[in-house]
Amino acid sequence: MTSLWTRRAIHLAALSFLTANLGVSAMASEINTNIPVTLINSFEVPEDRLADAVRSWEQARDFLKEQPGYITTRLHQSLSPQAKFQLVNVALWESPDAYQAAIQKLGKSGIVAEFKGISFHAALYTVIREDE
Amino acid sequence: MTSLWTRRAIHLAALSFLTANLGVSAMASEINTNIPVTLINSFEVPEDRLADAVRSWEQARDFLKEQPGYITTRLHQSLSPQAKFQLVNVALWESPDAYQAAIQKLGKSGIVAEFKGISFHAALYTVIREDE
Repeated sequence: MTSLWTRRAIHLAALSFLTANLGVSAMASEINTNIPVTLINSFEVPEDRLADAVRSWEQARDFLKEQPGYITTRLHQSLSPQAKFQLVNVALWESPDAYQAAIQKLGKSGIVAEFKGISFHAALYTVIREDE
Repeated sequence: MTSLWTRRAIHLAALSFLTANLGVSAMASEINTNIPVTLINSFEVPEDRLADAVRSWEQARDFLKEQPGYITTRLHQSLSPQAKFQLVNVALWESPDAYQAAIQKLGKSGIVAEFKGISFHAALYTVIREDE
């Protein structure tokens, strides 16, 4: 379990910048090139769409894992059916640019089934605090 | 403070339903109160509360990492100020029971600052898909 996490290289310069600027406003313009990033995508999945959503996610994963910059991915399912986000994907990419390029390619590929009726919140993150 | 972290009970019946529907057959017999779990907590943090939220999170982390069953934790910050969830915590615990016990203890400790004005969605998850 931990081995997947430790595969993520932390770009120290970028990390220092982030921790020093928790006001955040400068981040969007500064961080856009070549640092490892974590994609976190939270899905609001109706109970009767869970199996469909997982199948669509698998199709996307099979495509994305072949793209440049892909590191790893994990799909999490809530232990409780009452949780707002029944599925949460956590993936590592070598850079925001690599992720954006892969997602654009995925969109054009036409291989991924639509996620009708499924809301999701996807964003790129950087780790700002860990165990000390 | 206790409301910051989820206190949801883990229901075996619900879990069996989920695993049966998603074909996660190996999990059904294993998922009880003694499996490693992933806590994912997504925070909707106004920009001017970001530093406060991180400090409160650090206080909680320092307490929780000393509790039985704690494995590791990571706080993620969005690269974009437009993302719905500016902070996302991803932590590993040895079991749902260990997590619940630690959270209850944290709530009673009184050491953690309040997270006023900060909405969050916290739930326990299990990994159902990884790289193949």
